Amino acid sequence: MSAETFQRARRPEQKRRRQDAILDAARDLARRDGVGNVSLADIAGRVGIHKSALLRYFETREQIFLELTAAAWREWAQALHGALDQAERGSADLVADVFARGFGDRPLLCDLIAHTPLNLERNVSPEAVRRYKLTSLGAVEEAAALVQRVLPALTAEEGREFVTALASLAGAVWQIANPPPALAELYASDPELGHACVDLVPRLRRTAEILLAGLIPSRNQG
Amino acid sequence: MSAETFQRARRPEQKRRRQDAILDAARDLARRDGVGNVSLADIAGRVGIHKSALLRYFETREQIFLELTAAAWREWAQALHGALDQAERGSADLVADVFARGFGDRPLLCDLIAHTPLNLERNVSPEAVRRYKLTSLGAVEEAAALVQRVLPALTAEEGREFVTALASLAGAVWQIANPPPALAELYASDPELGHACVDLVPRLRRTAEILLAGLIPSRNQG
Repeated sequence: MSAETFQRARRPEQKRRRQDAILDAARDLARRDGVGNVSLADIAGRVGIHKSALLRYFETREQIFLELTAAAWREWAQALHGALDQAERGSADLVADVFARGFGDRPLLCDLIAHTPLNLERNVSPEAVRRYKLTSLGAVEEAAALVQRVLPALTAEEGREFVTALASLAGAVWQIANPPPALAELYASDPELGHACVDLVPRLRRTAEILLAGLIPSRNQG
Repeated sequence: MSAETFQRARRPEQKRRRQDAILDAARDLARRDGVGNVSLADIAGRVGIHKSALLRYFETREQIFLELTAAAWREWAQALHGALDQAERGSADLVADVFARGFGDRPLLCDLIAHTPLNLERNVSPEAVRRYKLTSLGAVEEAAALVQRVLPALTAEEGREFVTALASLAGAVWQIANPPPALAELYASDPELGHACVDLVPRLRRTAEILLAGLIPSRNQG
């Protein structure tokens, strides 16, 4: 085996390891500082390579975060299977609780959801967006099928409506529930701003309960 | 009257006129290009002044957009009064339709809602955020009271839950419903991405109907 063949064979494995290191660095920084506060230079600095070297592995900062979002959707759907595959049928409260905690336990996914249409899909190639969309739509389909399994009164479309509404809300409400420290202090100290304080999981659980209560009887009236 | 007194008397009026010109420029650009694509330099360029001169009137780019958001909430609440003050009681469908169109008719408000916790509240003074929050929370209270007037079966808190959930969704769904041209083309041409296409007003109307259906019977079961 020539040196050249050896190097060629090693290359895909090395490349994947380098990509994983970049994704890990971006994930750590985003968890600590928030997705919106992490630049390409921050990620490169943490990996210990130059920005231009980093761009050999990913198109843009946004593509790195889009890959993290896809991975987070897959892991989220997997966790829902764990919580709902053996669940007793008919309990809307269980579904509401599992979905609220499914987002509450994944702050990075919530932060990423809000950034996706606003930023992440806007600075990458259509092909990268397509790959991402197939993953996120697939995760939503899987989650909708689980909802329908536990609540057979719902149609597939109604399961999808529930999941997409709650996912959009998880992204939006997480941002409101996690203000910068100076604002958290302001909201807590000013009685007039009491309604500006939001607690993510109770709020999502309550909205999930309302949505399911609205969906379940909707066809009985028809 | 000395020249000096004359100039002093004119100053607040001149200042307000300059502020209005800046707000108008930012509004025009944001409507055309999207809030996320408008920089401080863009706004200064359109007004025809230097960036540093602009910062005599507003703290930051974000404060300019926060002022526009406050104005948009006030105008939105005013329009709801027009649509619901004389409305017949008991029609959840009317409320759902009025709220869906209330957001659908105001693309700039929807775009701003998504940007507010993510960006606009993060680069301004706590005092500017406080003023903004009092306006937005006031608009939500007004809207919740209107919902409760038409649907007296709801409590004030339930009216507020409906309005805040729908407002958060309006912000999130508007971004999804308004992708950049390259993505809109991709979604329309690829059958596997059919669910990536969203139509704002029908989607909001449908979710509003589900939320109201879920809220209205909720106490009857208790």
